[in-house]
Order: sequence, then structure tokens, then C-alpha cells
Amino acid sequence: MCEASAYLIQDGKEELILENVDELHKEGEMIKIINLFGDQRVLKAHIKMISFVDNKIVLEKGR
Amino acid sequence: MCEASAYLIQDGKEELILENVDELHKEGEMIKIINLFGDQRVLKAHIKMISFVDNKIVLEKGR
Repeated sequence: MCEASAYLIQDGKEELILENVDELHKEGEMIKIINLFGDQRVLKAHIKMISFVDNKIVLEKGR
Repeated sequence: MCEASAYLIQDGKEELILENVDELHKEGEMIKIINLFGDQRVLKAHIKMISFVDNKIVLEKGR
């Protein structure tokens, strides 16, 4: 098992929005991220990058 | 470290396109995936889902 931390770029900086992320789904214009504990975040964002080495998801607002 | 396998949905089926994926980057309309060995694939696709539990990336053609 390997969870990731999800960051959202806000004002040019990466802000941590959810830890221990297990799953990410694209749902239309929205991105849903779900963590180990069942916590969910749904954002109008797109994926900028994902690193499986650093266990990191970087999202950006808009599409 | 945890690598993922990347699949592309073709004709409704998931086709394995790259194993041991370490990184994914969005570059305009393109998705670039890079694996442990430095192999790269660049596709005009979008991310449908990512599972950190199953170490799986699912891409779909188009945006």
C-alpha cells in the first residue's frame, strides 16, 4: 500500500489539502480524491503532476 | 517507493501501456508518463482514475 499527499496550487504555492490519499477519480470537470479514512475532497481542478516516488499529487484550479 | 501500471482505455477495454510508472505530468493537452527505467510515453489523453491501493493509472483518449 502506498498513499499520497494531495496539494492544490493556490497563489503559486502548494497547499496540502488531503493526506493518505488512496484514490483519485475524474468526474466530469471535477476531481474527487479519497483517503484511507474515507475522507473525500471534490474540487474543480485538474491534475498537474503525480509522483509515485514522492507519493505526491499536485492539483491546479480550473481545467 | 511505489510504482504504478498505466492503462489506456481502448474500445472499452483497459490496455497496459507502461509498467513501473514513477511520474505523471500534464503538459497542455498531453499526458506524459515516465517509468523507473526512464521509458516515457506521451499521449493525448486524460486521467480517468488513479488508485494508490492498486498501483493503477487509467487513462482515456481525448480530454
